[in-house]
Amino acid sequence: MEDGKYATSFEDIQAAAARIEPYVNRTPVMTCSTIDKLAGRQLFFKCETFQKTGAFKFRGACNSVFVLGDEEAKRGVVTHSSGNHAAALALAAQLRGIPAHIVVPRTTPQCKVEAVVGYGGEVHFCEPTMEAREAACAELQARTGAVLVPPYNYGPVMAGQGTIAIEFLQQVHDLDVLVVPVSGGGMISGIALAAKAIKPGIKVVAAEPGGLNRSPDVALAKMAGWLLPCARTETIADGLQGRLGDLTWPVVRDLVDGVVVVEEQQIVGAMRLIMERMKLVVEPSGAVGLAAVLSPGWAACAATADCGRVGVVLCGGNLDLAPRGFWEGWLPGPPAPRPEEGERGERGQAD
Amino acid sequence: MEDGKYATSFEDIQAAAARIEPYVNRTPVMTCSTIDKLAGRQLFFKCETFQKTGAFKFRGACNSVFVLGDEEAKRGVVTHSSGNHAAALALAAQLRGIPAHIVVPRTTPQCKVEAVVGYGGEVHFCEPTMEAREAACAELQARTGAVLVPPYNYGPVMAGQGTIAIEFLQQVHDLDVLVVPVSGGGMISGIALAAKAIKPGIKVVAAEPGGLNRSPDVALAKMAGWLLPCARTETIADGLQGRLGDLTWPVVRDLVDGVVVVEEQQIVGAMRLIMERMKLVVEPSGAVGLAAVLSPGWAACAATADCGRVGVVLCGGNLDLAPRGFWEGWLPGPPAPRPEEGERGERGQAD
Repeated sequence: MEDGKYATSFEDIQAAAARIEPYVNRTPVMTCSTIDKLAGRQLFFKCETFQKTGAFKFRGACNSVFVLGDEEAKRGVVTHSSGNHAAALALAAQLRGIPAHIVVPRTTPQCKVEAVVGYGGEVHFCEPTMEAREAACAELQARTGAVLVPPYNYGPVMAGQGTIAIEFLQQVHDLDVLVVPVSGGGMISGIALAAKAIKPGIKVVAAEPGGLNRSPDVALAKMAGWLLPCARTETIADGLQGRLGDLTWPVVRDLVDGVVVVEEQQIVGAMRLIMERMKLVVEPSGAVGLAAVLSPGWAACAATADCGRVGVVLCGGNLDLAPRGFWEGWLPGPPAPRPEEGERGERGQAD
Repeated sequence: MEDGKYATSFEDIQAAAARIEPYVNRTPVMTCSTIDKLAGRQLFFKCETFQKTGAFKFRGACNSVFVLGDEEAKRGVVTHSSGNHAAALALAAQLRGIPAHIVVPRTTPQCKVEAVVGYGGEVHFCEPTMEAREAACAELQARTGAVLVPPYNYGPVMAGQGTIAIEFLQQVHDLDVLVVPVSGGGMISGIALAAKAIKPGIKVVAAEPGGLNRSPDVALAKMAGWLLPCARTETIADGLQGRLGDLTWPVVRDLVDGVVVVEEQQIVGAMRLIMERMKLVVEPSGAVGLAAVLSPGWAACAATADCGRVGVVLCGGNLDLAPRGFWEGWLPGPPAPRPEEGERGERGQAD
């Protein structure tokens, strides 16, 4: 592999691994005999659900923050995101003692805003359009001199995510294939670069949500050989709504051996298996890799033929149970007395 | 500690550890800095949620099955239970290749019956009364010669559960206290015997559901010095509805240093922390230990003073999400068309 061909390299990923080692969790690899039987092969799950902030995103954010020189770092970092990348960047900046400016659409759920604030991030609200988000970021960069850290289309982020492959192949030597959920391609490009440098024969397969409401643009781009414009991004795997960028696409184009497209119902089924049989809390995006291995598309994917030992990245566990009413109704108790019409006003004030 | 004083001993527990080692999972110990901050001390969680069959019960069941001589074993084992002990005994018997007769009340949820059947257990339905359960067991014993394996009040079961302490203290050497959920006392008596033999200064504290609908009989018995009759056993921690027996009580009386009684709402709060922050699926019973550490009763318990390093047993992860409607509504989609009255019959046949 030519050096400098892509936005990051195996050397960058090795340097990232050393750089972030004091801060990240070396996440465990788990197995489940019941799921092995269902899949008809041996599966090894790299549990990034146990990564700090609950998702693999902390690796890339951490590398992006700690790669900065002291002078540059002092001015802080900035990103626009309402998800796992925002929380990850906030925590990484907090660990370095520098400001993290997070531009957040006004429509973001309160719990996600609280996560960012909890890690010391400075939240800046904006209108919920991509233009408003980018404008707010540009304004903050201009005003503070903070460094922009995009969620995936960025060398240091790709390098940070690639450290997953170094650890995984240290923990399980003889994997035939790695299955990696994909949207913007930051994780799979880092993993493909590292895995193929360590073990040239290994296959890297992308697991992509498709179904009715999300066009599988990684699968389409790989078939076409160029990056088609795609629009529909609605999936329950809300962590996988990104789109390949100009830095991640070349790696995906050259080093990813196959794409398995999964339907929404298969993602729910995989989540259910992981939660019920492995006893792990996983978000929909995190279950997409297992969904791929269990889907009809797996058998149809040439890259997965004869793959008996499969590494699956469980990439995140930030499942918010509260909106699903999960925490209600545990304690039945007597029904609350219905207030008379006259009482209601007073209660309203007292509450 | 006098040998033969109790239904089991440290020597029995060591023998059990060697006996079941080929079959049980050596479960990991996990930590969580967020929860440490909340608790104001360092917590170490022994994740029996990852034990085979999803709960610690497999240890005791496995020891009870493999301690039998070949002739005796051939006739099988029998128990009445609708919970984790039933599934555990079925799997242990399957591994030894002997029959497991499980007497199950007719009212048991289908999913629990399926778990027993899935592990090869022979299910025998009975009326949902304790008399009917015991009569059905006695009849099966008489007819088949199977050995009765009670869920907790039984030496080999107590010894099997005690192996948790051997592993835990190998994994984390300098624990000040172990916090163990209690109902029938099988787990805590085994753990107390083993832990105090290995590390005489260690404290063992019981975490017991109390609140409105369950009388905390371990706490009451420890205060009174004798086993008071108790009746109310309703708690969301449905794995903790047992009652101390004549074999477990003497160990609890002599070796348990304190009891912390927790309310139902504290159990739900602890479950939520474990699922949201640790990303582990846990059943209510499994969360009772953490609930105790975070409850006001912890500070009031003399045995927990100056305990900075706390071992908590997360004893089970068999949380059934389906009855809570958890798996519904992920995929909104258009509402299904309402069939006309005439169509309904045809659809019913076609499905």
